Amino acid sequence: MPEYILTLRCADTVGIVHAVSAGLLASGSNILEQAQFTDPELGMFCLRTRFESPVDAVDDVRAALDAELARFSPDLSLRRRDAHRRVLVMVSRFDHCLADLLYRRALGELHVDVPVVVSNHEDCRALVESYGVPFVHVPVTAGTKPAAEQRLRDLVREHDVDVVVLARYMQVLSDAFCADMPGRIVNIHHSFLPGFKGARPYHQAHERGVKLIGATAHFVTADLDEGPIIEQDVQRVTHAQTADDLVELGRDVERRVLSRAVRLVAEDRVLLTGARTVVFG
Amino acid sequence: MPEYILTLRCADTVGIVHAVSAGLLASGSNILEQAQFTDPELGMFCLRTRFESPVDAVDDVRAALDAELARFSPDLSLRRRDAHRRVLVMVSRFDHCLADLLYRRALGELHVDVPVVVSNHEDCRALVESYGVPFVHVPVTAGTKPAAEQRLRDLVREHDVDVVVLARYMQVLSDAFCADMPGRIVNIHHSFLPGFKGARPYHQAHERGVKLIGATAHFVTADLDEGPIIEQDVQRVTHAQTADDLVELGRDVERRVLSRAVRLVAEDRVLLTGARTVVFG
Amino acid sequence: MPEYILTLRCADTVGIVHAVSAGLLASGSNILEQAQFTDPELGMFCLRTRFESPVDAVDDVRAALDAELARFSPDLSLRRRDAHRRVLVMVSRFDHCLADLLYRRALGELHVDVPVVVSNHEDCRALVESYGVPFVHVPVTAGTKPAAEQRLRDLVREHDVDVVVLARYMQVLSDAFCADMPGRIVNIHHSFLPGFKGARPYHQAHERGVKLIGATAHFVTADLDEGPIIEQDVQRVTHAQTADDLVELGRDVERRVLSRAVRLVAEDRVLLTGARTVVFG
Amino acid sequence: MPEYILTLRCADTVGIVHAVSAGLLASGSNILEQAQFTDPELGMFCLRTRFESPVDAVDDVRAALDAELARFSPDLSLRRRDAHRRVLVMVSRFDHCLADLLYRRALGELHVDVPVVVSNHEDCRALVESYGVPFVHVPVTAGTKPAAEQRLRDLVREHDVDVVVLARYMQVLSDAFCADMPGRIVNIHHSFLPGFKGARPYHQAHERGVKLIGATAHFVTADLDEGPIIEQDVQRVTHAQTADDLVELGRDVERRVLSRAVRLVAEDRVLLTGARTVVFG
Repeated sequence: MPEYILTLRCADTVGIVHAVSAGLLASGSNILEQAQFTDPELGMFCLRTRFESPVDAVDDVRAALDAELARFSPDLSLRRRDAHRRVLVMVSRFDHCLADLLYRRALGELHVDVPVVVSNHEDCRALVESYGVPFVHVPVTAGTKPAAEQRLRDLVREHDVDVVVLARYMQVLSDAFCADMPGRIVNIHHSFLPGFKGARPYHQAHERGVKLIGATAHFVTADLDEGPIIEQDVQRVTHAQTADDLVELGRDVERRVLSRAVRLVAEDRVLLTGARTVVFG
Repeated sequence: MPEYILTLRCADTVGIVHAVSAGLLASGSNILEQAQFTDPELGMFCLRTRFESPVDAVDDVRAALDAELARFSPDLSLRRRDAHRRVLVMVSRFDHCLADLLYRRALGELHVDVPVVVSNHEDCRALVESYGVPFVHVPVTAGTKPAAEQRLRDLVREHDVDVVVLARYMQVLSDAFCADMPGRIVNIHHSFLPGFKGARPYHQAHERGVKLIGATAHFVTADLDEGPIIEQDVQRVTHAQTADDLVELGRDVERRVLSRAVRLVAEDRVLLTGARTVVFG
Repeated sequence: MPEYILTLRCADTVGIVHAVSAGLLASGSNILEQAQFTDPELGMFCLRTRFESPVDAVDDVRAALDAELARFSPDLSLRRRDAHRRVLVMVSRFDHCLADLLYRRALGELHVDVPVVVSNHEDCRALVESYGVPFVHVPVTAGTKPAAEQRLRDLVREHDVDVVVLARYMQVLSDAFCADMPGRIVNIHHSFLPGFKGARPYHQAHERGVKLIGATAHFVTADLDEGPIIEQDVQRVTHAQTADDLVELGRDVERRVLSRAVRLVAEDRVLLTGARTVVFG
Repeated sequence: MPEYILTLRCADTVGIVHAVSAGLLASGSNILEQAQFTDPELGMFCLRTRFESPVDAVDDVRAALDAELARFSPDLSLRRRDAHRRVLVMVSRFDHCLADLLYRRALGELHVDVPVVVSNHEDCRALVESYGVPFVHVPVTAGTKPAAEQRLRDLVREHDVDVVVLARYMQVLSDAFCADMPGRIVNIHHSFLPGFKGARPYHQAHERGVKLIGATAHFVTADLDEGPIIEQDVQRVTHAQTADDLVELGRDVERRVLSRAVRLVAEDRVLLTGARTVVFG
């Protein structure tokens, strides 16, 4: 039997879990894994369910669920588990995060489709194409920024993209672009936010003499470096390491954090709740 | 409205979540947090639900659930969230785990009742009584072991104990005693199991030159050091540390792991599934 | 043979290690463990040596070293290893860090003398006295602050204190006091600096939706929350934890980080180099 | 001025550090970083020194050191820091560790030369050659094993190899081969040794229900899975992960641990002391 992933957000009230399970039962489905959490401050109900169903059609299962759930006006997502999320990766020159994502996908660790990689530089073309993935060069200057972003929107639409991943993409996206894709753009910030926002965080970290450096994967919002956090991790450093050493060591934790975040998002485990996320890990 | 914690294990089949939510709905209850997992190898359905209910009586809520769930023959546990688990702590001479548990409970970090502490030595009496907890000395020799264990059974019954925690208790409990309390006896083993089973694990670890030491909290079964694992953690060590240093450093990770395990068990987050556990963290 | 700990800081030049080893050789001493690091930016030479010596008198060993080292004008510290550092602990109301330090010292994990604990409240008196340590109540108000600080200076002198540890002491020390004891006052900050400086860091962390919380032990300087960092660590948290939960979880990492920092300082492993520290771990 | 790395092991006695520093002073060298440790059980003195010297010839510096140190019969290694260690990497079919090493070297994170990669399969040829590194296929069957090992010895000699790294090489090297290169063959074992020795460790780990999986990099000795440990790390797992998931997750920690170990070895930070290692991290 095919497996499905359902996620659902709505205002909390009595009866939602019952309605979901009634919809699933009506379609003969069996729940395999379910996680539910209600944010007490926002009163927002969040649920993720993995189930198997003899009804081999998303539309039919969805119809059964809609019938039960319509009165909650939910923000609902449903897909077959093997219909992978489509991820557009953006990169500038540092390729370590990109290389890691492509390598893990090739290895079958990261269950996503990558229909296209976009960069404002040509540096990563060979790497991307060696994986058989189309590489699109979209240069960005002050003057061409709106056009570049329009190109990006077109690519998102053409390739039916679910998630945009900024794998060390050094251009700032416009507020409008961010606002159009809430909870669908993932960035890796090379510091343990909210420490060391802004430029050259490893040099800031070295100057401050920290004993741990970190990285943060977050959804992108108009407010740079302030988007809802998806995943964070750290790595121990010592006095003997220079700022350049921290940059090197940092790559490892950036790679690790971004790939974990993309995996979580690709498995529909991350639900946006205001300025925070619920992560059903 | 009072909050309740429900846990449930049974053979997996279609309709269990629906039946649970129907029972809750019937009693006007609202689910606040729910986690479900079906072990694919054992076909065992596991669920934990935290809900609030206007029905301020465990019995009434339970009756509503039983009506819906009887056909699944579930192993079901239901309690008001503020009816804390009753924990009997056992200790021999090393008091660091015991001290940590008592301190955290006093601080309000660990929501358990500790009606009594039992030891085969007198060493920890002052510590225990300083917290206002009764201390019972039950000496154990080869000859008195059965009587000692009978005394322990009596204490479990008298004090309505839910969970026995072995906080560095150095006597081996009989197979019969372990078998009578499956998933209700928690032990801390001073190594990262399954490495270094048996005696003097830190000395074994030092001889082997490991770079991390660890501790393991597990349910106790007849097969010593092989019970289902609840929680584990590690701590970095170096060549410069002697075996005695590892013993010292190890205390910290033992304390941390045991207190986390007790917290998880006290919140009904740990469900026994054969030789493993499901931990709804 | 008794063991000694030597630390030394001076402007870097050729021949310092040779001079140290010549001085030690002259007194028949044998080096057991040595770590040296020269800060490339400050050009500051830092060294820590543990050695055994048949000369059972600090003064004689020191004389031998001084003869060789005078020309480097070093900042030199020498003591018998078993002449423990004398630590004055300050606390306000939260006693978890204090309790941990006293417990570890009693256990023999933390090789320090604690001649006195000072607090601006009475809350911790019983705890401190239960360890046989004198407790001195020094209340602080806006009006009495200078007098209170004078009292503190007197206590430091009377008790021959090496290090002051602020174990959740909530009063700010004056710039003058801090300046008089550089590298000798250790504070625990309940966040992973430089994130969440200032008040209620766990509530800030919760609002920001971080996935790890942390704590930072640092030397105190006039610039609050900006002193040289000694040790840091983190702990994973999830969306399901409230701000109050973070406060509870945070206690554990605060305790751990502060006790590690005090241990490092007590073993003369931390050398101050400008705004950073060298930690010979 | 060029930098040098010196390591030295010998039976402990008085005067070694003094003799080293005398030798360095005689050649006008300046110590930048020094770490020394004497194993108390073996009485083995271990030292690593990084220094700069105006004498731009290893032979001259070495002569100066030899003059001072001959009487200690040390096991001494001296090289210019920029004369990178030459690493022969061996692999079978799983390429994640190999890919990581090659990628980090290309990035300049791992300062080693890789003159050749050897495999008993053809699978990794394209990957290796894409980095411009020669790939040598040395098939191994029961019958050809001695010949294959002779080929390996020839490659080690031809390419002046310092260290052999087994990056998931699934053939067992003969005792004789291991004995000829003590402390020069590094293996990655896909478990947290000494737990789960032998085959399919992740499946063993899953069956045992562990909450952390790990990896261990160690020197290879005749006693398989028992060689001196260089580095270890762990990764948290949950009940929801299958044995296959653990295999996937494990790759990440294997990569990380092996690359850290190779970096430590390549920087001459790992000294073999009997069945253990001293790691000057």
